[in-house]
Amino acid sequence: IRNEDDKILLELFEDVHHADVAEILDEVNWDEALYLLRLLDSETTSEALMELDDDVRERLLDSLTPKEIAEEIEEMDTDDAVDAIAELDSAIQEAVIEQIEDEEHKADIREMLQYDEDSAGGLMAKELIRVKETWTVAGCVREMRRQAEEVTRVHSIYVVTKEDVLIGRLSLKDLLTSDTKTKISEIYIPKVDSVHVNDDGEDVAKLMQKYDLEAIPVVDDEKKLLGRITIDDIVDFIRDEAKEDYQLAAGITQEVEADDSIIELTRARLPWLFLGLIGGVGAATIMGGFEDILEDYALLFFYTPLIAAMAGNVGVQSSAIIVQGLANDDVKGSISNRLLKEMALAALNGLLLGLALFAFTALWYRNEPDSLHTALAISISLFAVIIMAGIIGTFIPLFLNKRGIDPAIATGPFITTSNDIFGILIYFWIAKLILF
Amino acid sequence: IRNEDDKILLELFEDVHHADVAEILDEVNWDEALYLLRLLDSETTSEALMELDDDVRERLLDSLTPKEIAEEIEEMDTDDAVDAIAELDSAIQEAVIEQIEDEEHKADIREMLQYDEDSAGGLMAKELIRVKETWTVAGCVREMRRQAEEVTRVHSIYVVTKEDVLIGRLSLKDLLTSDTKTKISEIYIPKVDSVHVNDDGEDVAKLMQKYDLEAIPVVDDEKKLLGRITIDDIVDFIRDEAKEDYQLAAGITQEVEADDSIIELTRARLPWLFLGLIGGVGAATIMGGFEDILEDYALLFFYTPLIAAMAGNVGVQSSAIIVQGLANDDVKGSISNRLLKEMALAALNGLLLGLALFAFTALWYRNEPDSLHTALAISISLFAVIIMAGIIGTFIPLFLNKRGIDPAIATGPFITTSNDIFGILIYFWIAKLILF
Repeated sequence: IRNEDDKILLELFEDVHHADVAEILDEVNWDEALYLLRLLDSETTSEALMELDDDVRERLLDSLTPKEIAEEIEEMDTDDAVDAIAELDSAIQEAVIEQIEDEEHKADIREMLQYDEDSAGGLMAKELIRVKETWTVAGCVREMRRQAEEVTRVHSIYVVTKEDVLIGRLSLKDLLTSDTKTKISEIYIPKVDSVHVNDDGEDVAKLMQKYDLEAIPVVDDEKKLLGRITIDDIVDFIRDEAKEDYQLAAGITQEVEADDSIIELTRARLPWLFLGLIGGVGAATIMGGFEDILEDYALLFFYTPLIAAMAGNVGVQSSAIIVQGLANDDVKGSISNRLLKEMALAALNGLLLGLALFAFTALWYRNEPDSLHTALAISISLFAVIIMAGIIGTFIPLFLNKRGIDPAIATGPFITTSNDIFGILIYFWIAKLILF
Repeated sequence: IRNEDDKILLELFEDVHHADVAEILDEVNWDEALYLLRLLDSETTSEALMELDDDVRERLLDSLTPKEIAEEIEEMDTDDAVDAIAELDSAIQEAVIEQIEDEEHKADIREMLQYDEDSAGGLMAKELIRVKETWTVAGCVREMRRQAEEVTRVHSIYVVTKEDVLIGRLSLKDLLTSDTKTKISEIYIPKVDSVHVNDDGEDVAKLMQKYDLEAIPVVDDEKKLLGRITIDDIVDFIRDEAKEDYQLAAGITQEVEADDSIIELTRARLPWLFLGLIGGVGAATIMGGFEDILEDYALLFFYTPLIAAMAGNVGVQSSAIIVQGLANDDVKGSISNRLLKEMALAALNGLLLGLALFAFTALWYRNEPDSLHTALAISISLFAVIIMAGIIGTFIPLFLNKRGIDPAIATGPFITTSNDIFGILIYFWIAKLILF
C-alpha cells in the first residue's frame, strides 16, 4: 500500500480514530511514519501524536521543521501543546512558538510553559466555556456556540465576573429551561470547587476523585479563571503514579517499559541490584563473625536464607500496606499506635510460623545431636526477626513520609536488603544466646 | 453538638458535600452514625453511603430496616443501588427491592443484579439521556429537560431508533445551533463507540482510556441501548486494579487496608509467609546436602543469603516489567524473543555485579587459603543465578497469562521463593563444579 499512492492512503485513513493512527505510526518504520505524518492533515496527526509514547513523539517531532511542528501544535489543546513543546530542545522551542499563527494560542502556551509539569497549572487546559454574569441566556447561548468551536467537550459552563473572577457555574438544565431573556446572574449556581494554579497535581487528583468531579476550574491568587483540568488528564496521572509505585516496589527506579532498550532497563534496575549486593556482602561478613560456632551448629547456617527471606517478605508486606494507606490518606492516628498494631500482628504471624518451623526442624533433625535445642533457637529467632521486620517495614515509610520523601521508595529492595542484614544479625545473636 | 438537637444539626449539614458527610459518618461512633443517617434526608445520606468503605456501609445498612434501606436506594443511581443491594444478605435483598416505590427503578435494579459485577453490565448505570431519531429539535429539548431530572450529569445524548437500537449520538453544539423544527435524524452523528453488556470491565477501562471517552453506551445483542458507563466508575476500577496488583506484588492476597483488623491482615499475609517458610526449609535441605564441603569452603555458605536475595530481586524486577506490560497490552512479539532479551539484560547485569563481587571477595579474603578460587566460584555462580532468575521472572508471568491466570500473582513472594531455591541449588552445583 505504501508506494506513495497518496489518494488511497488518505481515503483509508479518513475514518480511522486518532488513537489507532498512533498505533499505526508506532508500528511502521521511521520514514513511513514521517511520510504519513506529512501526508495526513494536522488535525488527525496532532491528536495521534499525543497518543504516542513520549520518546517516540519526541523523536518524530525532532525530524520535522519548526514550521511543521507549529502546524501540529496549532491543532492541539493548550495542555497537549505545552507538553509537546516542553519535550523539544530548548533551542527550537522558541522557533516553534514563533511559527504559531493563532496569537491567543501562542500567548496561552507561553503562559503555561511557566507552570510546573505536575502542578494544577501544568495539567490544565485553557479551553473552556466561560460566560459573564451580566449576559442573558440568549447571549450566553450565542457565545457558547462560538466558544464551543474550540472546546472539544463541554464539561461545565463557568460563570465569571467582568474581571474574569470565577463566581460559579451554570447547569445545562437551567440554561435549557430558562427564558431567553433571563440574566445569567439569576440562574447560576454560586457553589463551585476550584484549585489554585500552583496546587500539587496529586492533591488535585485526590480532590477530583473524592468529589467525583469530571472537570475542575483552575484559578490564580485573585480567583481569576485560568483554565480547567479534566478527569481524563487525571486518569493518566493516576495510572502513572500507580505504575511508578509498583515499579519502585519491584526495585525499578526510572519509568521503563518492557519494550525499552537493554541499556535503559539496566540503568533502572542495576542500582537496586547493587544495593542488594552490598546487603549480601554485609550478611556474609556477619556470618563470618560467627564462624567459630560453624562446626557445632552448621544447621544454623543452613537456615540463614529462610531467615533472610522471611524478614524481607514481612518487611515488604508491612511497608506496602503503609505506603498505600499514605497514598490514599487512610493512615490516621499516631506512629506509636501504628507500630504497636504491627507488632501485635507480627507477633501473631511470628508465633504461628515459629511453631510450624519448630515442629518441622525438631522432627526432621531428631537424630542429630542437640537437635531440640537448635530447633528451638531457630524458631525463637524467626519469631524475633518477624517482629523486627514488621517494625522496620512500618517505621521506615512513616519516617520517610514525615520527612517529605516519597515512602514508595521504602518498599522493595530497600526494605528487603536492610531486613536481610538486621534479620541475620538478630538471628545469630539470639541463637548464640540460646545455645551457649 | 450531639444532644439530639435536630434542628441545629440539620442546618449544619445543609451545605456539606456528601463526600464530607461520609467522612463524618466514618469518624463518629456507631449509634451517632445511625442517628445521623435517620435524621438527614435520604438524598444526602444515599450519596454519602456510597462514599463509605464497603464494609462500613454494609454494617450500617444491616442495622436499618428494609423500608429504610429502600428509601436510601430510591435516591441512588441504578449502578450504586445495585452495588449496595448486592452487598446485603440475600435474605433481605428481596425485601428491600419490594419496598422500592419507583417501579421503573425497581425493574432496572432487578435487571442489573443479573450482570457480573466486573462486566460492563455491572459497571453501567441506567440513567442517561436518549432521544429518538424521529423527534424534532424542539421535542428533543423538551424530553431532555424531563430526562435530565433523573440524570445527575449529562455526558452524551444518545440517539436510538423506535426499537431502542443505538444508532448514534447528538452533539450539544448541533442541538443548540439547529433550527427547532429540524429532525434529529438529520443532525445526529452516526459514529458512536459502544460496549456489549457482557464485556469485561477491564477491557472497557482500556477502551475508554485509549479513546479518552468520558462515557460509553452499553448495548445488548440486538444493539439495544441498556445503559452507560461513566469515566468516574472507571477511575475507581483502575485504582482498585492497581491496588490489587501492588498488594499481590508485596505478598498480600485479599484486599486489605492499613486500618483493617489484625485477623483480616493475618489472613491476607500469612499464606505468603508460609510459602516463604517452605521455600526456606527447601533451601536449608539443599544446603544440608552439601554439608561435606562445609569445612573446606565455609565461605560459600556465608554467601547464600546474597545469592538468594539477588535471585529474588532480579526475578521480581523482570516479572514486574512483564506484568505491567501485559496489563497495558504493551508486550508484543513472541515469548522466545522476550526471553532472549531478558537473558541479554540479565547477562549484562550479572557480568557487572559478578565482577564487582569478584573484586571484593578476592581482595577481602586474600589471606584465606584458596581464596581466588572461591571468589571465582561465588562470582560465576552469581552470574549464572542472575540469568536464571531473569528467565524465570519473565517466563512465569507470560506462562500464567497464556493459561488465563492473572500474572500479577507471579510477582512478589511466589517468584522470590522459587528463585531462592533454584538460586541456591545452581549456586552450590556450579561452585562444586569449579572447586573440585
